[in-house]
Amino acid sequence: MKELIKLVDEYLDKYLPVSYPEDIFKAMKYTLSLPGKRLRPVMCLETARMLGGDMMKAMPAACAIEMLHVQSLIHDDLPCMDNDDFRRGKPSNHKVFGEANAVLAGDALLTFAPQTIIEKSEGLSPEQLVRILYEYTKFAGAYGLIAGQVVDIESEDGKYVKSPEETLNFIHLNKTAVLFRLAVRCGAIIANASEEVIEEMDNFAKKFGLAFQIYDDIMDEISTFEELGKTVGKDKNSGKLTYVSLYGLENAKQKFNSMIKDCCDIIDKYDSKVINEILNKLRDRLSGV
Amino acid sequence: MKELIKLVDEYLDKYLPVSYPEDIFKAMKYTLSLPGKRLRPVMCLETARMLGGDMMKAMPAACAIEMLHVQSLIHDDLPCMDNDDFRRGKPSNHKVFGEANAVLAGDALLTFAPQTIIEKSEGLSPEQLVRILYEYTKFAGAYGLIAGQVVDIESEDGKYVKSPEETLNFIHLNKTAVLFRLAVRCGAIIANASEEVIEEMDNFAKKFGLAFQIYDDIMDEISTFEELGKTVGKDKNSGKLTYVSLYGLENAKQKFNSMIKDCCDIIDKYDSKVINEILNKLRDRLSGV
Repeated sequence: MKELIKLVDEYLDKYLPVSYPEDIFKAMKYTLSLPGKRLRPVMCLETARMLGGDMMKAMPAACAIEMLHVQSLIHDDLPCMDNDDFRRGKPSNHKVFGEANAVLAGDALLTFAPQTIIEKSEGLSPEQLVRILYEYTKFAGAYGLIAGQVVDIESEDGKYVKSPEETLNFIHLNKTAVLFRLAVRCGAIIANASEEVIEEMDNFAKKFGLAFQIYDDIMDEISTFEELGKTVGKDKNSGKLTYVSLYGLENAKQKFNSMIKDCCDIIDKYDSKVINEILNKLRDRLSGV
Repeated sequence: MKELIKLVDEYLDKYLPVSYPEDIFKAMKYTLSLPGKRLRPVMCLETARMLGGDMMKAMPAACAIEMLHVQSLIHDDLPCMDNDDFRRGKPSNHKVFGEANAVLAGDALLTFAPQTIIEKSEGLSPEQLVRILYEYTKFAGAYGLIAGQVVDIESEDGKYVKSPEETLNFIHLNKTAVLFRLAVRCGAIIANASEEVIEEMDNFAKKFGLAFQIYDDIMDEISTFEELGKTVGKDKNSGKLTYVSLYGLENAKQKFNSMIKDCCDIIDKYDSKVINEILNKLRDRLSGV
């Protein structure tokens, strides 16, 4: 796991050299290079490997998914959105580079990600490339990540049109699970997996995404700033819909455990030390809560 | 020309149906459906046609380029950027939908554009698709449109690192010419044109983009709000680098005429009533100034 994270960090840095105009490349690299768990790229690489593919063939797509993730963090932190001054323990992008550059750095990452897939991928057929790019564009936009963010913002104002349960589920699936789905789907496509296996991994990612979001909701409730590296208790204070606010802490923990169990059942069919390590780490951290 | 604009409007509407969550789709469609000259998609369609390709094969790419253009307008108008309350004679996106939704609508268009190319293109080979998507991602981001916008913002603060002339040229090439380059390059690729012809059309688009920007600079100087549908005289008031501020009105007009003449020389080799119409219209409007 640690080695994979190091490898991802290396390639994220390598894929994005600073050129003119430097300000924009520096802003893009700033949030991208903050130390993170790199869960999404690691899942992409590991899915490709465990399904019999060449892990390194998945590196451009894996890094692209992290770029997309970081793009969403930069824009989420903006004053007009969540207005968060810290991210991964450091001042957020707009605090360092100003709002205009933070908007533009996010925009630039949103197209630099697929550019990286096209430029750096080796040994993929044009058909595979088009399919990966299609998954990327679909999950990144109004049918994925952005849809989740929009409903999330609406939910803070109590303006949701569906029931609270359906709304929360929609947010979690689109804001969180979507990037894990993109990660495992790209990994599986690169490994030339069958449609059946792609769908099974997609199902894994949906469950993992929900478990991860519940974990995040619980952590936001009980952690300190030092532990999370970002403002805590914001969800509660803003009256946001979360798993904890809607179902209570105990039910949230139960739901988390059942989702992680489903994830293990799927992954046990394959041989993935890395994904098991991720699942166990999340479970261990929550078991003491 | 009018028929082509109508056709583009029709497809822009058709390609983007409103679904849940409605707010984001409405925000995307709002700026996209404001009446515009649709110069970029028309150039894309017309290039495909005049180089012997099937014009309708270029419709998804043509509309995608307009989506990218509109995305850049929505983000440019934000309070943290140019802070413009009007666009095409109507309140700008963030005035209607709020800043958060305007940021997200721009983000969503940025990936919906290539999604449209992949979903709606018919009769293109996977190789052609990958190449078009590559051109899109490169020109849309930190090596194109965003680079132009960043240097433009820096130039307003007098913070440019190159000479004023080089800086202005960089802004015009990247902020304006880049979308025309993308338009004609995609049109030519879809028509299966030779690399030589692609480069010739690229050269045309660079010159046209510069001419168009000089035209825009002059118009900003001499027009009324009613004529332009957006705030006028802003460039001058903000001390922005423009062709007029740097070289004076007479030199700007001369440069414009020489660029348009170069454009005509290239297009005369082909049979394009539509592009000639565009060139003549711009020239006629400026001749009285």
